[in-house]
Amino acid sequence: MHKKVIAFVVYPEVTPLDLVGPLQVLKPLENFGPFEVVTVGERLEPITTDLGMRIVPERTFAEVPVPFALVLPGGLLGPIQAMTNDAFMAYVRSAGATAEVLASVCTGSLILAAAGLLEGRKATTHWSFLDSLDRFGARATRERWVEDGRVITAAGVSAGIDMGLALAARLAGDTVARNIQAIIEYDPKPPFGAVDWDQVERSGLKRALLTPYASAIQKILEGRPELMAKLLP
Amino acid sequence: MHKKVIAFVVYPEVTPLDLVGPLQVLKPLENFGPFEVVTVGERLEPITTDLGMRIVPERTFAEVPVPFALVLPGGLLGPIQAMTNDAFMAYVRSAGATAEVLASVCTGSLILAAAGLLEGRKATTHWSFLDSLDRFGARATRERWVEDGRVITAAGVSAGIDMGLALAARLAGDTVARNIQAIIEYDPKPPFGAVDWDQVERSGLKRALLTPYASAIQKILEGRPELMAKLLP
Repeated sequence: MHKKVIAFVVYPEVTPLDLVGPLQVLKPLENFGPFEVVTVGERLEPITTDLGMRIVPERTFAEVPVPFALVLPGGLLGPIQAMTNDAFMAYVRSAGATAEVLASVCTGSLILAAAGLLEGRKATTHWSFLDSLDRFGARATRERWVEDGRVITAAGVSAGIDMGLALAARLAGDTVARNIQAIIEYDPKPPFGAVDWDQVERSGLKRALLTPYASAIQKILEGRPELMAKLLP
Repeated sequence: MHKKVIAFVVYPEVTPLDLVGPLQVLKPLENFGPFEVVTVGERLEPITTDLGMRIVPERTFAEVPVPFALVLPGGLLGPIQAMTNDAFMAYVRSAGATAEVLASVCTGSLILAAAGLLEGRKATTHWSFLDSLDRFGARATRERWVEDGRVITAAGVSAGIDMGLALAARLAGDTVARNIQAIIEYDPKPPFGAVDWDQVERSGLKRALLTPYASAIQKILEGRPELMAKLLP
């Protein structure tokens, strides 16, 4: 039987929780329908993540040219670097053009937007890059996850778990999604409760996140003023 | 300066979200204290996870003989297989004996218990293996995470994120933990709300989880009736 391939894109400096959250949620769909859930990368070689550990994807881009669903995890240096990789962006564009589901976690949506796939779409991203998402032509919305037609985008990092469950429900029904939730025991209990955004000094925290990468970003975006203007004006 | 190494143990068939949840949470501690957060494995080779994708750890067991903290993620086939790997268990026993923090996610606590490290300790695990945890000599407790002295254990899979934040607060203070929570935007919003455990047919779901692995488990535990009696009586 022809399988519907759900392809999770892996690239250098990706944030592993962006990838693994929805991957852990969606993998069991293989038991509930004609789905195949795989990681894809430029090559089948270890890819360094922003946690240090490396990930080896199961398939190359060339092996999965027309996935049913394309899922873009995010990162900090990772997406910026990826946007300047022509082979990578060519894959996102062509696989994204035909995918019936286009998904992202965190700044993964910036990659989709930079590929021209979110023009005029309601979408979200990490709280620190909502403005950038707008500048790339999407309609940035601050929600846990946002669905607009075939596009489903999640907020920062951990939001991919919630998005993954919403997508599982869409693809395989509520009962399957609820069973998956029980299997991964997703009954969150953050020790300090929900984030109190009024107490989060967002601009300072964003600066602290970016500082260690400032010179690397500068270097990557040298000669790409149009990207710099959208990402870090 | 001598670093306090937080070592996340990677082994074949591990559940990636068990590993990556607390790893993503604890990695930023490197910016807030004398911590070094790494993945460790028997060899520096790609290790197949239960999602198909492979992970390459950063260090070998031999390179990190005396970590400050030892974190055991779980899995299904993975921990059962690991318990029968003498070299693996020898590392868990010796590194675990001296670690100032002994942590686990999901069935990772069964590995700690099988290594004799949870004798009489209050601990938790995935809902489907609480009985086994008791049979291994721990005092199984059904909570999101459980702290008992140097031991901190989390419930199933996603619970590692909550446990990780609790541990971050213990090691670096509440403010740091809250900032990390904001960075990973951990403001959970499960599409169906919290798990309604009264609606979860637990024994049927546990059977469904185990069935695909039944013959593999049988084979691994051949000649190990004492493990079989504790794991799957």
